[in-house]
Amino acid sequence: MGVPNQFHAPLAVQALAAGKHVLLEKPMGINSEAARQILHAAETSDRVVMVAHQMRWESIAMQIKEQIERGELGKIYSAKTGWFRRKGIPGWGTWFTQMDQSGGGPLIDIGVHMLDLALYLMGNPKPVSVYGSTYAEFGPNRKGIGTWGTPDWDGTYDVEDLATALIKMEDGSTLSLEVSWAVHMDTDNSPFIHVMGSEGGASYRGSEGKLLTEKFDRPIESVLSKPDNDEGERARLSRHFLACIREGKQPITSVLSGFTNNLVLDAIYESSRTGNEVKLDWNLKQ
Amino acid sequence: MGVPNQFHAPLAVQALAAGKHVLLEKPMGINSEAARQILHAAETSDRVVMVAHQMRWESIAMQIKEQIERGELGKIYSAKTGWFRRKGIPGWGTWFTQMDQSGGGPLIDIGVHMLDLALYLMGNPKPVSVYGSTYAEFGPNRKGIGTWGTPDWDGTYDVEDLATALIKMEDGSTLSLEVSWAVHMDTDNSPFIHVMGSEGGASYRGSEGKLLTEKFDRPIESVLSKPDNDEGERARLSRHFLACIREGKQPITSVLSGFTNNLVLDAIYESSRTGNEVKLDWNLKQ
Amino acid sequence: MGVPNQFHAPLAVQALAAGKHVLLEKPMGINSEAARQILHAAETSDRVVMVAHQMRWESIAMQIKEQIERGELGKIYSAKTGWFRRKGIPGWGTWFTQMDQSGGGPLIDIGVHMLDLALYLMGNPKPVSVYGSTYAEFGPNRKGIGTWGTPDWDGTYDVEDLATALIKMEDGSTLSLEVSWAVHMDTDNSPFIHVMGSEGGASYRGSEGKLLTEKFDRPIESVLSKPDNDEGERARLSRHFLACIREGKQPITSVLSGFTNNLVLDAIYESSRTGNEVKLDWNLKQ
Amino acid sequence: MGVPNQFHAPLAVQALAAGKHVLLEKPMGINSEAARQILHAAETSDRVVMVAHQMRWESIAMQIKEQIERGELGKIYSAKTGWFRRKGIPGWGTWFTQMDQSGGGPLIDIGVHMLDLALYLMGNPKPVSVYGSTYAEFGPNRKGIGTWGTPDWDGTYDVEDLATALIKMEDGSTLSLEVSWAVHMDTDNSPFIHVMGSEGGASYRGSEGKLLTEKFDRPIESVLSKPDNDEGERARLSRHFLACIREGKQPITSVLSGFTNNLVLDAIYESSRTGNEVKLDWNLKQ
Amino acid sequence: MGVPNQFHAPLAVQALAAGKHVLLEKPMGINSEAARQILHAAETSDRVVMVAHQMRWESIAMQIKEQIERGELGKIYSAKTGWFRRKGIPGWGTWFTQMDQSGGGPLIDIGVHMLDLALYLMGNPKPVSVYGSTYAEFGPNRKGIGTWGTPDWDGTYDVEDLATALIKMEDGSTLSLEVSWAVHMDTDNSPFIHVMGSEGGASYRGSEGKLLTEKFDRPIESVLSKPDNDEGERARLSRHFLACIREGKQPITSVLSGFTNNLVLDAIYESSRTGNEVKLDWNLKQ
Amino acid sequence: MGVPNQFHAPLAVQALAAGKHVLLEKPMGINSEAARQILHAAETSDRVVMVAHQMRWESIAMQIKEQIERGELGKIYSAKTGWFRRKGIPGWGTWFTQMDQSGGGPLIDIGVHMLDLALYLMGNPKPVSVYGSTYAEFGPNRKGIGTWGTPDWDGTYDVEDLATALIKMEDGSTLSLEVSWAVHMDTDNSPFIHVMGSEGGASYRGSEGKLLTEKFDRPIESVLSKPDNDEGERARLSRHFLACIREGKQPITSVLSGFTNNLVLDAIYESSRTGNEVKLDWNLKQ
Repeated sequence: MGVPNQFHAPLAVQALAAGKHVLLEKPMGINSEAARQILHAAETSDRVVMVAHQMRWESIAMQIKEQIERGELGKIYSAKTGWFRRKGIPGWGTWFTQMDQSGGGPLIDIGVHMLDLALYLMGNPKPVSVYGSTYAEFGPNRKGIGTWGTPDWDGTYDVEDLATALIKMEDGSTLSLEVSWAVHMDTDNSPFIHVMGSEGGASYRGSEGKLLTEKFDRPIESVLSKPDNDEGERARLSRHFLACIREGKQPITSVLSGFTNNLVLDAIYESSRTGNEVKLDWNLKQ
Repeated sequence: MGVPNQFHAPLAVQALAAGKHVLLEKPMGINSEAARQILHAAETSDRVVMVAHQMRWESIAMQIKEQIERGELGKIYSAKTGWFRRKGIPGWGTWFTQMDQSGGGPLIDIGVHMLDLALYLMGNPKPVSVYGSTYAEFGPNRKGIGTWGTPDWDGTYDVEDLATALIKMEDGSTLSLEVSWAVHMDTDNSPFIHVMGSEGGASYRGSEGKLLTEKFDRPIESVLSKPDNDEGERARLSRHFLACIREGKQPITSVLSGFTNNLVLDAIYESSRTGNEVKLDWNLKQ
Repeated sequence: MGVPNQFHAPLAVQALAAGKHVLLEKPMGINSEAARQILHAAETSDRVVMVAHQMRWESIAMQIKEQIERGELGKIYSAKTGWFRRKGIPGWGTWFTQMDQSGGGPLIDIGVHMLDLALYLMGNPKPVSVYGSTYAEFGPNRKGIGTWGTPDWDGTYDVEDLATALIKMEDGSTLSLEVSWAVHMDTDNSPFIHVMGSEGGASYRGSEGKLLTEKFDRPIESVLSKPDNDEGERARLSRHFLACIREGKQPITSVLSGFTNNLVLDAIYESSRTGNEVKLDWNLKQ
Repeated sequence: MGVPNQFHAPLAVQALAAGKHVLLEKPMGINSEAARQILHAAETSDRVVMVAHQMRWESIAMQIKEQIERGELGKIYSAKTGWFRRKGIPGWGTWFTQMDQSGGGPLIDIGVHMLDLALYLMGNPKPVSVYGSTYAEFGPNRKGIGTWGTPDWDGTYDVEDLATALIKMEDGSTLSLEVSWAVHMDTDNSPFIHVMGSEGGASYRGSEGKLLTEKFDRPIESVLSKPDNDEGERARLSRHFLACIREGKQPITSVLSGFTNNLVLDAIYESSRTGNEVKLDWNLKQ
Repeated sequence: MGVPNQFHAPLAVQALAAGKHVLLEKPMGINSEAARQILHAAETSDRVVMVAHQMRWESIAMQIKEQIERGELGKIYSAKTGWFRRKGIPGWGTWFTQMDQSGGGPLIDIGVHMLDLALYLMGNPKPVSVYGSTYAEFGPNRKGIGTWGTPDWDGTYDVEDLATALIKMEDGSTLSLEVSWAVHMDTDNSPFIHVMGSEGGASYRGSEGKLLTEKFDRPIESVLSKPDNDEGERARLSRHFLACIREGKQPITSVLSGFTNNLVLDAIYESSRTGNEVKLDWNLKQ
Repeated sequence: MGVPNQFHAPLAVQALAAGKHVLLEKPMGINSEAARQILHAAETSDRVVMVAHQMRWESIAMQIKEQIERGELGKIYSAKTGWFRRKGIPGWGTWFTQMDQSGGGPLIDIGVHMLDLALYLMGNPKPVSVYGSTYAEFGPNRKGIGTWGTPDWDGTYDVEDLATALIKMEDGSTLSLEVSWAVHMDTDNSPFIHVMGSEGGASYRGSEGKLLTEKFDRPIESVLSKPDNDEGERARLSRHFLACIREGKQPITSVLSGFTNNLVLDAIYESSRTGNEVKLDWNLKQ
């Protein structure tokens, strides 16, 4: 089950203070305030702090990233990402469904994966404004729980179970982010991402990817799949962490990227509460 | 090809003045100002004015609407709709690609269909705020044109080819709207809509629909299809128009619904231009 | 290959006499007379006697049983079960194809599995009358043998290779049972069962199950599958046997259920021989 | 909708008396007593009486029959036929759901088609004994009605909606017959028939057929389909009727075959009522 | 059934002599000698002579040809074409199966279609050498006849039913040609062609085509299909014939292309007879 | 990567001289001259020399061979085999792409597998004449390399990447052989073989096989698949090698079969170079 999100920041700060390198599970902080604490602690330390966003290390994501970096897709101007689980709420009573321990529902649980990967593939544009809504129609009514597992029917459920948002970037590009733990929708329950560029696009769903462009004045595409002997994303992620330590370099999933994710997530929750667009506050000090 | 959108309002106003009943193709006006003119003309006339949104009359949409009206899906709190064409820009030089005649690209061409249907299935909630982005990466570069047809390579292209937006309603529900004439994305080129309710959901893509809910503590669904002897949506639409004339009643695709569509579309274009959320101005007079 | 069916009863009786708990492979006896001997021996013993009908412990069967017990399918009034192997006769010369050792062909070999599971899912109704036919068109003609294995072309084959029967229950419900080792039929070679209730139904074929009912005034269904981490039916079966020993309770596959199966099978063979319906004789003493 | 079954016999007898050739829709009579009246009237007339069992004239059924007549399937010893509609009860208030006008539910409505075809493909064996059950769990509870059509919610429903039966023939072969208008079962709603012979088999479901046998010591099969330019079964049926008139010959769907069907159906209803096997009474006079 | 191939040349020569434009079904002549007669007659006439190779006018073939002419596939260096019918011999007794009337079996019947299309797509290279084999294992043994039609079991069958050949061109490219009327092979009975170029390839099978190349350092492809409103190949072919007459231009399926086809076919038959490679004799006079 | 082909003959000759039994990977020699050396060395030795053509030991190939040997397919008169890899050139710089070490490209790398299996299934007919072409449009242009692996962009590439050939046998049968490492073609990248006989045929592609014939005057087929518990082809091959040693018998993949393969491959390369048919020189001495 892992350590509840509320403890990520205090533990990371303590570890750094103790001179340890830190590999944090996502989300980096329970909110942007907590993330900012890690950011500050890391600034004054020479230790490596890395967030374990393993989706960046999946074979298909890496193949897509490689094409984008080579410029094969041209300018990335729009992206769509999300993960709709139809009936996958963790059993109530776990910390996942309790706001004070988790900081939120599917948005901070699985949405942070997709947000992180999308920003990475888009070339790390700077988010400037967020607009979104969250809903909780299943959990509070004791519905939508995953078929397997032992639910605690009296547990607390005070987080969302569906979230949808648009995020505008400084460079003019836009990202759509949608997630659910439970929703009455026709979904294959797989994470997905679509990256749309001026010269080509990439789609990734479940364990299959596609590169798309025009050729012969026609739509044309290449299916991407994992190699048979794929060592797995966690192996590559771990090697990267070790390399960063050894070579004293910044991990690609740096504290800044972790902070960015938290900043955007906070803004989605706020936009949902107020009904208004939220302009991001990039003041890193506070 | 139909009459360019810029002439919808003047023709409708003249026809009403001449005492004719009016059946208008979508969009009702080239923008909300034009739509407001039709609204005012209709207010002072006893003639029927109806917008020909035939998707409301498609068999599967009607089956879904029937279930929603019976309350089988519970409260509708979120919806997603769109239509991604991968390579379907009308040949340049047609009025479709010229802003002064069309008022926009895929958003006003096919997006208005999906917006209208979505609002109808959601129970006609009142949109209050809009946030969106539009892009034109294909048309201006002479790419993305549909395979068949005779393109005018020197024609004007000054509209968008991709649009994405979120729309918040007065009752707290949210609608996501995405359309393209051309995009490097993995798409089946079909219009789609997902309606998410507290008790059930509905999905509609191409010529197939689904109703979804939980039963036996499991996800469960029913596939909807057109009956073999379906008379077709245009036949039903026409009968409705005639019934409204005969019985002096308001069509379900009334001038108010047409105005609502134009108001939302205008706001998406504005949000894209300014980068900001747009609060809708529901002052019907002007 | 296991112990030939003819030795099940003598071995079980001896084991009980020696104070052992007994876990018997199916069928409990080579016929109902043999089964009755085990029944009597078990009555006067405090040991646990259980028949190893592992299909009751398969994940999908258990999911279906759970729904039936909750009443979700309403009253079960009809069921269909069977297993058509197209070309799967065990090599001649094994005891399987010799009446005096096996007691019969596919009916007692694989039919007993399906009969047991069907009665269990139907809620253990009491069979009162049986009508059926058996045929042997392949084995005696040296046809229909499974592709793999080393046939003994001179071995004895004096059992059926196809059987079909209807079984009426005291509560008015009916069960259809059909099995083959070899038949010229379009079959996927998988065991199947359909349970039909007043409020819903369940289907199970190969490794997939379905729950079915009406909702939205339409047919609706949920696909059941084994969980990825399924420990397997034999593990659950074994735990049940141990729990029965520990807690001194009756196994769900009790000697009475084993006897019931043998009683029905005997009646099918008799109905085929005489051409007449057979009323079951529930006199447990003899 | 056709003429209610109760009028088949009186109309046929009158028509014969008036010297007309008679082409009757199925079932020939509302019961075997009515069928016997037609039989008697036909005996003393030189006119042609034919039952319009069009399934015998479907292209795939004819291809199968041709192979059987050539002896390619060997001796036919068993057959299975049926038609499970999951949710297809005709709207209440039609004569179909009223016993006094129809004589029964799906058994006499669609079951008679399958029974007739099965007996024909089996080579017209003589049925000697019947055992079956019928149920009505949907209709009386206002469930299971077909999605399309205008139900009369106050109409009478006093027929079965599910039937299952086994029929033994004089030559030792057996036929299983199962039909429903409504049932909670995993069904593709298509009629089906399996004919099992000593040398080969044939399967027919929906619009596809298969011939099956062993070759290369392996199962082997040939898919049958309708020719593209198929003139249709009704055209062939009509030509046969005209040929019988012109040539003074007996149609293949003679009054005797129509009587046989009614005799078997009556016996299934009786077996369900009494719970007992019914031996058929072949006394043609009465 | 058309005019037997043996009459193509005499009729064409007579028609030209009478001053008629000539549209000939394939093959142009029953052999190259007959084709040479048409060639000579056409040389001294101002009338249009066109061979009706309609496959060149099929929508997908035309889409492929357009890409090749644009140079999108680069240099075409190899091609494969054929048409394997598994069981499609025309009923014996038709002229198709009689050498003196047809000039050959599937090679001259359907092979000429594929040969003509392949040479056209390859850019009309000049064949210089041929090597091939033909077989007749079905027809002479009264097997392999198409299911539908009325065979004449005593008719003559003295042509091949399978042919395979390699054809080398002056520019170094090679074409593989394979056809059958009957063969025990796993085939979908569709004509096929693969054109392999240095920059891309094209595949055409049945009613679907594909363009293939490398992009993103990966295989990539575009599926081609007929447009929904395709007027059909015969309409386009006829318009081309009329345009040639009106504009006095040479049809793309000229007498020279017809002669080339006959020359290659003759050489395949000769190579099969002698067992040796045949160098083509391009002396047009004789 | 194995030992480069150029060393097969010297190593085998030395091993035999040292009194060792020899199991050689394919191809036996880098060309027929090298193969002849092994042949001669084996003739004067009592050691076993076997070529490790493991495809002969694959389960499906063995099932097909068994049927052919039983005569179920009749006379084999034609066969087609090949292996089209669309983009599978081994990284340049390996010995595979260098003529002096490998003797050729896909023809000698994977074509030799298919040639060997085809001749074996055809019953080891004696090839007498060869006609073929080879091309190299990818490798020399640094295209067509397999996606995975580390290419040496400066390595040598002087072999073919596509080859096509026809081979005529002494008994009149013909074999078509086609292979590629890289080609712009619609291929599933699987090896395939079709064996066509007078009474039946066999097809083998990837991991599935089929036996085909006529029955019921219709095409009919049986799908072959590997048994679940298949021990694998290398296990069977090794057992055969050991049995040959133990029993002093000739392996089925004898030196003569290895020589035959080399002789045919040499002739294909020569035919491509000269443009002419090549008659095989069966003089085993030289």
